Amino acid sequence: MRIGIINTGDELLRGALADTNAVYMASRLHDLGFRADRFATIGDDLGALIEAFVAAFSELDLVLVSGGLGPTDDDLTAQAAAAAAGVKLVRSAEAEKVVRAAFARRGREMSPVNLKQADVPEGSRVLDNPNGSAPGFALDQGRARAFFLPGPPRELEPMFEAQVVPALPAPPARHVAAFRLFGMGESDVQAALAPYAAAHPALVYGYRATFPEIGLRIGAPDEAELAGAVAEARRVLGSAIFAEEDVGLAEALGRALASRRLTIATAESCTGGLIGHELTQIPGSSDYFRGAIVAYDNAVKSGLLGVDERLLATRGAVSEEVVRAMADGARRALGADVAIAVSGVAGPGGGTADKPVGLVHFAVTTARGGAHLERKFSGHNRAMIKAASAWTAMRMALDAVREIS
Amino acid sequence: MRIGIINTGDELLRGALADTNAVYMASRLHDLGFRADRFATIGDDLGALIEAFVAAFSELDLVLVSGGLGPTDDDLTAQAAAAAAGVKLVRSAEAEKVVRAAFARRGREMSPVNLKQADVPEGSRVLDNPNGSAPGFALDQGRARAFFLPGPPRELEPMFEAQVVPALPAPPARHVAAFRLFGMGESDVQAALAPYAAAHPALVYGYRATFPEIGLRIGAPDEAELAGAVAEARRVLGSAIFAEEDVGLAEALGRALASRRLTIATAESCTGGLIGHELTQIPGSSDYFRGAIVAYDNAVKSGLLGVDERLLATRGAVSEEVVRAMADGARRALGADVAIAVSGVAGPGGGTADKPVGLVHFAVTTARGGAHLERKFSGHNRAMIKAASAWTAMRMALDAVREIS
Repeated sequence: MRIGIINTGDELLRGALADTNAVYMASRLHDLGFRADRFATIGDDLGALIEAFVAAFSELDLVLVSGGLGPTDDDLTAQAAAAAAGVKLVRSAEAEKVVRAAFARRGREMSPVNLKQADVPEGSRVLDNPNGSAPGFALDQGRARAFFLPGPPRELEPMFEAQVVPALPAPPARHVAAFRLFGMGESDVQAALAPYAAAHPALVYGYRATFPEIGLRIGAPDEAELAGAVAEARRVLGSAIFAEEDVGLAEALGRALASRRLTIATAESCTGGLIGHELTQIPGSSDYFRGAIVAYDNAVKSGLLGVDERLLATRGAVSEEVVRAMADGARRALGADVAIAVSGVAGPGGGTADKPVGLVHFAVTTARGGAHLERKFSGHNRAMIKAASAWTAMRMALDAVREIS
Repeated sequence: MRIGIINTGDELLRGALADTNAVYMASRLHDLGFRADRFATIGDDLGALIEAFVAAFSELDLVLVSGGLGPTDDDLTAQAAAAAAGVKLVRSAEAEKVVRAAFARRGREMSPVNLKQADVPEGSRVLDNPNGSAPGFALDQGRARAFFLPGPPRELEPMFEAQVVPALPAPPARHVAAFRLFGMGESDVQAALAPYAAAHPALVYGYRATFPEIGLRIGAPDEAELAGAVAEARRVLGSAIFAEEDVGLAEALGRALASRRLTIATAESCTGGLIGHELTQIPGSSDYFRGAIVAYDNAVKSGLLGVDERLLATRGAVSEEVVRAMADGARRALGADVAIAVSGVAGPGGGTADKPVGLVHFAVTTARGGAHLERKFSGHNRAMIKAASAWTAMRMALDAVREIS
């Protein structure tokens, strides 16, 4: 099955934004056991669109088009699709319903220009759009089935799930396990799984790296194959796995806290508030997140976190003693059950021979006691050191919380 | 001049990552007055690569290829380029120097397999890669000039600047002004500039939106045209412009603080530490950023920020009185010259008829006094409300700091 993804819009060719629709559809196809053969990005140019659609209709089995379904003059997808298929553009009563419903939902008057969105190639099937005014449409051309979806991701993604996924042939891999990982690079994860993957060609491994986390999905033709793959993944990836579902680290930590009715606080130096930011990206985090003290300046470490000034003078801010004192101070000052503290050298300046850029100390403290960790992040820029530090701290906290029954 | 960008790699077709190389190259071309005609993404498949290169050589004037220059079996770009051009693949002494230099820089032994990277199509010109082991190459085929660059952005981007940009024909727009904006949507910015742009077709307007900021670049054929365009941009965009250079808001605020030798602190509720995180993304921010108190819980607002508990009870945490008290408390507790405070309802839960999701209060306080702002962010999800709030707070702080001479 040959699959092509075509995205339209001058804004893509200007480099004004990345083509996240192709990423979304390709990764979902991969999850389901299919592989996209090619992506193409075409501008708002009728001739170029017709040429691309004609080629796609003749060479591919599945064509996924996004964008160009709006009401303005540079929205040319329906016109180009009709020309490429050799049919007329016709006003569809069903499509008109989709347009009118969108305006009704927003309580806004529909301008006649929006009815252009109800014009679809003759013989196509209209696709409902619950999140916008642009109806999609599907068109069969010879062996090719083409889906035309609106460009905004919040409209495209639900339509892809509701309209495209059910139309795919029964996928070769239907049993899926998801993992989230932290602490291994994507190439190391692939290398660790490679021997098993090579010996089990029916398995489909999918990766999605959003630094510093990695998402892994394994698709298998049956439960037994999946169970074997899951056991092997656990064996070779070990503690790099922090969740056996598609859930980020901040959310996994939040769930572990919420299910135990525990609260958390942070004392942050080099992360600058990033841990608090990540924890509070999760809806409902106010149930367990008490707050943070970002102690960038040493006077704040002693004043608000109660770190002994002599410790700061003798051991330095980036030390086991200070980071443990920061965690204890945050737990006390913010009234939390669990506290995590981070202190390190994010660079590019501020490193010494003794305490180089990338050196970070971590501490977690709970009613059961504390833990400390020291890490040296090499080859990382400032933003990467901050992110790796925030994730290391959350990972430590997750371990500490999971030990509390 | 017809320009195509071709990106290679199965990982792109799996949806494992977005094609940021195309975005980078297309936006830089746009800055320089050129327009990419199409992007294509091809997998690690020799036949498909050859087909794509043959088509590109015959249809385009400039072909920019990224990826597939590594040492492993699935790196097929040089082989495919040679086949498409009808020439042999030859070992290049110059390319070998690039490979060996990369290993020498890292102090690592070169494995013989890496010499594959020194094989380039006969007649091509080798391009140095100061940041990796894969040499690039340029190949003229009929009217087409093709550049083959490595996939990692930190290798590709400097090579694009050093090798591709100087090879472009004299661009139509050489005088460039850069702006950064916050507080207007990209389509509103475009609409505001549209009449002037339409009347001055020699101007090139480039946008890069990284929510919630927008970057605007205006290119003009001469200084006089540029001066007119800049004056018009200032007139119609007004206070949405926070910098007349390509500098983000956190950095603009940092520079304004540093040049006045002022320090800053934050008191954050709904932003959860995001402002501290953004301020500390800037190298050298420890010179002016004292720290933050993330007071997610009301007990922290009263305990650490000294907000009167009666105020919290009578006015609520999301109110002018409380946010002003938070700013004053942060300035005092963290010993800073300037403090910014944010309190709002990030949602999706926690909204009331009186204080709906998206309602956010802001305060800034300096030695000269304080300011307050109330905003209601509609149609935003939790992450967007947090980001819009952090940027609104930094924008307010920038105004307050700029008033201090």
